[in-house]
Amino acid sequence: MNLVGLKVGEETRTSPFTAGDLAGMKDAVVTIVGVGLISGSFAIALRDKGFAKKIIGVGRSDGSIQKAKELGIIDEAMALEDAVKQSDFIYVAIPVDATVPMVQKVMDLVSDQQIVVDAGSTKNVLCAALSTHPMRKQFVATHPMWGTENSGPEAAVRGAFEGRACVICEKASSDATAVSIVENIYKALGMHIVYMDGYSHDIHAAYISHISHITSFALANTVLEKEKEEDAIFELAGGGFESTVRLAKSNPAMWAPIFMQNRENVLDVLNEHISQLRKFKASLEKENLQYLTELMENANKIKRILK
Amino acid sequence: MNLVGLKVGEETRTSPFTAGDLAGMKDAVVTIVGVGLISGSFAIALRDKGFAKKIIGVGRSDGSIQKAKELGIIDEAMALEDAVKQSDFIYVAIPVDATVPMVQKVMDLVSDQQIVVDAGSTKNVLCAALSTHPMRKQFVATHPMWGTENSGPEAAVRGAFEGRACVICEKASSDATAVSIVENIYKALGMHIVYMDGYSHDIHAAYISHISHITSFALANTVLEKEKEEDAIFELAGGGFESTVRLAKSNPAMWAPIFMQNRENVLDVLNEHISQLRKFKASLEKENLQYLTELMENANKIKRILK
Repeated sequence: MNLVGLKVGEETRTSPFTAGDLAGMKDAVVTIVGVGLISGSFAIALRDKGFAKKIIGVGRSDGSIQKAKELGIIDEAMALEDAVKQSDFIYVAIPVDATVPMVQKVMDLVSDQQIVVDAGSTKNVLCAALSTHPMRKQFVATHPMWGTENSGPEAAVRGAFEGRACVICEKASSDATAVSIVENIYKALGMHIVYMDGYSHDIHAAYISHISHITSFALANTVLEKEKEEDAIFELAGGGFESTVRLAKSNPAMWAPIFMQNRENVLDVLNEHISQLRKFKASLEKENLQYLTELMENANKIKRILK
Repeated sequence: MNLVGLKVGEETRTSPFTAGDLAGMKDAVVTIVGVGLISGSFAIALRDKGFAKKIIGVGRSDGSIQKAKELGIIDEAMALEDAVKQSDFIYVAIPVDATVPMVQKVMDLVSDQQIVVDAGSTKNVLCAALSTHPMRKQFVATHPMWGTENSGPEAAVRGAFEGRACVICEKASSDATAVSIVENIYKALGMHIVYMDGYSHDIHAAYISHISHITSFALANTVLEKEKEEDAIFELAGGGFESTVRLAKSNPAMWAPIFMQNRENVLDVLNEHISQLRKFKASLEKENLQYLTELMENANKIKRILK
């Protein structure tokens, strides 16, 4: 990547990127593909850091696009082709089943002066699909490990990524300048960077993120099935129930594709989880206080790891 | 209950309580039995409201008692008998297996000028055990639906009960003045009161509180079993994992007796939960996106109930 002007369509543009240096980001035109929780939070963070001259939104729903404009998340909306044409940095944050064809489409449109980044929760299928793309080096596969149960541009949060990890996958397949720019943006947003291949990422993500969502969805279904008095749930719910069931409010359109793409790892950890629940069941059926206590004492070890 | 002076041991005391009126609470001597999360938070709230002339702590551990004094939660520590003798209001918040004999012991010591309250997470066994006690009317069975994963006096939280429910069980078995005093204290602390018998309480508590703890303990064990790289948990954990696994940090000495006392209800809801997880498993095994989506959409109904 260099600073030489580049002919894209009718226009001549100069890449604002220099390896390891974010100074040029103030002149960057950024497109966010998808105007939701992650892209919206990312756009807000870019603006707060002075990292974008203009932010363009590409979205399927007029309502979301309109909302994103009202919230000042994007400056204007555009069709994908027009947006990519004038952008230095394209950030794709849409459901993972749509991410694969979308990133391929974007990369068919870009030159070696542009950077394409995704923010999806699965990485193996995506990295494999892109491995032979002629512009592969312009793409950086990332997973900022942050989210909430909410979706849409109105769910975007200022300071969202602060203190969280961002996984960058298959770094060696990306252009070194592109990687350094992406790393430094995420670091400027308060994240620490973890490097993995797509295969390992998906295993760790199944353990640390995807299973939590499954258990929370299943807990909500359990309580809705057993507790026929919805008033009782509303009246009695304390902080404990609210925190364990919070993720059950998450958007199925986002999570179903994640579980399907990471099916084998999710099934593997789900089987383990059912087996762990059966241990609690056995300890109660046998009224084995010692075993029950041991199971909980083992779970307490998570205190060592999470503050 | 009336305001006539009462001979207790060597001393003459006058009850500060008048039906529905908390004015006398400023003169009340209060004993908390157990100096931990709940009793500590309760004591702080009493002080903030000016509801106690003196707060005495009864605890098994010198360390906790000392800490509670340092934190200003209690004014002094005393042996149970001495504390009860000079107290108008005795609040028992200890593990539920110890609660039954402790409340019985306290009630053997009290007159009809004193109020005894417990704060345990199970109610059926306790209410049954006390039903024939000659001083039953002086006891009010309560369950403030609040808690955190932390324990000990240093875990006590100012404003803890605000906005939460407090269940009062088998109200008709308690003296009307005692109930009105207890209700009004909890209301002054920002709680809303829900009335139930002990049997119903334990069913609802299994659904809305106890199963959340089991799933969280089991989730921690699942992740600890699968994720052999503890660094990865530490580095990658986002807000979702942290919130679903938070309760796994809870104290086994508190929770094992709850699960054992409420064994049948907990097993019932645990069986349902395993069955709900199996539905997710089946949808993934069959790659049935529609079924998977339906399961999540059903879980989303919890949004209707919890804000």
